[in-house]
Amino acid sequence: MDLHGDNLIGGEALTVQGERWRAIEAATGRELPSDFSAATPEMVERACALADEAYDTFRETTPEARAAFLEAVAQAILDIGDDLITRCMAESGLPRARLEGERGRTVGQLRMFAGVLREGSFYEARIDPAMPDRAPLPRPDLRLRTIAVGPVAVFGASNFPLAFSVAGGDTASAFAAGCPVVAKAHPAHPGTSELVGRAIAKAVTSSTLPAGVFSLLFDPGIEVGQRLVSDPRIAAVGFTGSQRGGTALMKLAAERPVPIPVYAEMSSINPVILMPAALEARGAAIGKAFVGALTLGSGQFCTNPGLILAVEGPGLEAFLAGAGEALKGVAAQTMLTPGIHRAFCEGVAALDANAAVTRIAEGQAGGENQGQPVLYTTTARAFLTDHSLAEEVFGAASLVVTCRDAGEIRSVLARLEGQLTASLHMDEADHEPARALLPLLERKVGRILVNGFGTGVEVAHAMVHGGPFPATSDGRTTSVGSLAIQRFLRPVCYQDVPDALLPPALKQANPLGIPRRVDGKREG
Amino acid sequence: MDLHGDNLIGGEALTVQGERWRAIEAATGRELPSDFSAATPEMVERACALADEAYDTFRETTPEARAAFLEAVAQAILDIGDDLITRCMAESGLPRARLEGERGRTVGQLRMFAGVLREGSFYEARIDPAMPDRAPLPRPDLRLRTIAVGPVAVFGASNFPLAFSVAGGDTASAFAAGCPVVAKAHPAHPGTSELVGRAIAKAVTSSTLPAGVFSLLFDPGIEVGQRLVSDPRIAAVGFTGSQRGGTALMKLAAERPVPIPVYAEMSSINPVILMPAALEARGAAIGKAFVGALTLGSGQFCTNPGLILAVEGPGLEAFLAGAGEALKGVAAQTMLTPGIHRAFCEGVAALDANAAVTRIAEGQAGGENQGQPVLYTTTARAFLTDHSLAEEVFGAASLVVTCRDAGEIRSVLARLEGQLTASLHMDEADHEPARALLPLLERKVGRILVNGFGTGVEVAHAMVHGGPFPATSDGRTTSVGSLAIQRFLRPVCYQDVPDALLPPALKQANPLGIPRRVDGKREG
Repeated sequence: MDLHGDNLIGGEALTVQGERWRAIEAATGRELPSDFSAATPEMVERACALADEAYDTFRETTPEARAAFLEAVAQAILDIGDDLITRCMAESGLPRARLEGERGRTVGQLRMFAGVLREGSFYEARIDPAMPDRAPLPRPDLRLRTIAVGPVAVFGASNFPLAFSVAGGDTASAFAAGCPVVAKAHPAHPGTSELVGRAIAKAVTSSTLPAGVFSLLFDPGIEVGQRLVSDPRIAAVGFTGSQRGGTALMKLAAERPVPIPVYAEMSSINPVILMPAALEARGAAIGKAFVGALTLGSGQFCTNPGLILAVEGPGLEAFLAGAGEALKGVAAQTMLTPGIHRAFCEGVAALDANAAVTRIAEGQAGGENQGQPVLYTTTARAFLTDHSLAEEVFGAASLVVTCRDAGEIRSVLARLEGQLTASLHMDEADHEPARALLPLLERKVGRILVNGFGTGVEVAHAMVHGGPFPATSDGRTTSVGSLAIQRFLRPVCYQDVPDALLPPALKQANPLGIPRRVDGKREG
Repeated sequence: MDLHGDNLIGGEALTVQGERWRAIEAATGRELPSDFSAATPEMVERACALADEAYDTFRETTPEARAAFLEAVAQAILDIGDDLITRCMAESGLPRARLEGERGRTVGQLRMFAGVLREGSFYEARIDPAMPDRAPLPRPDLRLRTIAVGPVAVFGASNFPLAFSVAGGDTASAFAAGCPVVAKAHPAHPGTSELVGRAIAKAVTSSTLPAGVFSLLFDPGIEVGQRLVSDPRIAAVGFTGSQRGGTALMKLAAERPVPIPVYAEMSSINPVILMPAALEARGAAIGKAFVGALTLGSGQFCTNPGLILAVEGPGLEAFLAGAGEALKGVAAQTMLTPGIHRAFCEGVAALDANAAVTRIAEGQAGGENQGQPVLYTTTARAFLTDHSLAEEVFGAASLVVTCRDAGEIRSVLARLEGQLTASLHMDEADHEPARALLPLLERKVGRILVNGFGTGVEVAHAMVHGGPFPATSDGRTTSVGSLAIQRFLRPVCYQDVPDALLPPALKQANPLGIPRRVDGKREG
């Protein structure tokens, strides 16, 4: 594997003479081969300048040209071959099968956006034809399309080193919208980032796009990211990570002379509500399925089920017994980074030390940097008085809150902050009480699931991976699925502009063949 | 006319015992009849609590029910009759014809949103059916619809006491989305606000909606507005006014424990570019038309043409002569408030005192609170070095920047902040240089016009009344036209939710008969 560890500025590998750093092998804590160099202020500046130069050209490429580019990126990622998987395994501690699946997802979402581009609805094209004879005043010819907002800063996430990182969902949707991307590699997987970044740069070249369409910056710390978000040429930010990191970027973006939108996907404990009939009919089975979701990928998912709500009774006992039994057999898994492992251990220690919380089951103990899955219970009363119990413990730890009645379940839900998902486990006899909970859940979350868990976020047209603050910075959008393209678009209206000067999306003859609204009615 | 001057909290008129204040007659500066009382903190709290209570019910009314409600609001406004026009004339100084037109526009946009609701695309309904047999993993059933974001705070604008005020565009689009509204009346037209507020409350009652769907608060100062934006139950803010006011609300909203979106439409000088061939062919005629746009409504439009750019030469001389000649005959008009008149006079005095600026024409002098229209010139060089020249003077004052060549026009445009509109006056021979300017204009503005002026913002499907900061706080949306409904919606995904529990928009049988996407393809 050939890593050079340089920042990739508009396709050029730029070396820094100063201090260099290395990636850490997740399983061992040892340094991995290849030095990486943090971007200098001049490199951040240059990447943004090139992105800005590329913006006018890139945003006006045809949807077909951008679709072909996205497909070229997908192919270039596949062309890296097994080097990508092995380096990513070393850096993330995630197993091969998971990362092969994640690569498929990454490639799949790039291709999905190619389809979105070819379909053309993203233009939101609208035409209100002139009415020269209207009284008392004639109506001008009005035409609307969306355009790319400008260069986008994308922050790679540690927990999805492929699908939410350098060529992840934010990059794919920003590219689809026509926005150049300046990516900041997550320091936990710089080698993976370099390999993917070079694949993107190759696709930029082979698609004969301006080199500034993509740059990749490294930094083991936060300074490069701060500079990037503060750069006046950056028009929007995509981020997946901690609430502390996300809110810091929100603050920085809001305080700029020209504020910009930040799409940060942050923390969520994803409540799971076990309804009485389901619990009675199949408590143990739900418990077993729950453990599968809890321990998947060592629990390092934004959608990990961190909170279980149920009314006490034999059904819940069966659930706890089933979950406890299943958990016993689960091996500890390597966590993404020593820092994440440390934070997990601290979160677990705090729960162990909490007198209102009982540890009821755990998985097998593990070695260095491995997270031992663990399950706790507490009461609704304790949960409602101790706000620390609603904080996310990132990893395979979950808290079962036993409630005395449905009213207590509602009280706990009402006090929760915004979440990515909520799950209801229920049978037909549970429909009416579940119906009564839906309005509350709709206020709190971006996705409501029945008889499942939030892990496994399908890349689809109807997906919402988002939710009210602090699950995300902006509950009006999604970071997964085709709707994500809307984040990076803004509408522009053309009034009485001659056909020769109109963009193709709005020319009378509709040369792009896209769906449009004429006087509010859909055509094509 | 029967004004009580009370805050209207969920349909109830609540009187304060403390200090009361009166509206000012724009033309005379004298107090108008009827005392008004500022809302107490308890009233703000009560209005927000009622809005929050009404939210779940209101957002789940059928599109037909909300459409009928919007139509009832429109009818109730018309039912006020001439009292509304006469009070509004007194409070705003605007002439009858303008206010009758504005009433028509207000009613028209309420009815337009009724049409948007009946059409149903606003739901953005999407269905990705389950694929139980997909390998390696089955796909769940995924369904997406938008829901109302929550109670919205709407701030009335001084310059459109009907169309951008209590029942203006923000209220209409928020109601259409299913959001309860707590409106803060602009202190320049409290009587107008009360009449309209009571009309809305009447429509809430006749439509048997929860009373909390609408409240109206008064305050001659800023405290009530600040409380409103800080209330945890408020989910979004609509504002039209000064940059100072808008950015203060943005800051307040960003610093909340749960930040919320602010849609503030603020300042804009709306550059007008006079291209050479058009200038040569019809410079004088364009000058005359420009004066019409400049002086309309005493120049008190966000889209008022405040900046003219052209290359020096005989064409520009003809334009200036034509404009000067036309301006001479324009009478001074009463401005909206003594404060706005004072600010206009200060802005004009600063231009008069600027050695790099020449006053070249003016309209007729006026009486108390009347704005005398005035036209200035400067050079591109002076404009590029003196940032104060790019500041908006709200009223009928405009600055012609003479440029030595097309490059200077581009330099001036490049240094402008975000704007609502840009106009190009051009003939066919100007097409190529105009084409070269379009990418720059698209970066800067929300609407590009040819051979017209930005005043007269058509309420239509293809309208964008928005633009990059500081023209607005959020260039991704519009405050006029049907697209504005998107501001107050957010997507929610339903995964494997039984049909019986799905909202009507997503039920398999499509009982609402709305257009939906199935697997990304449009249906219906």
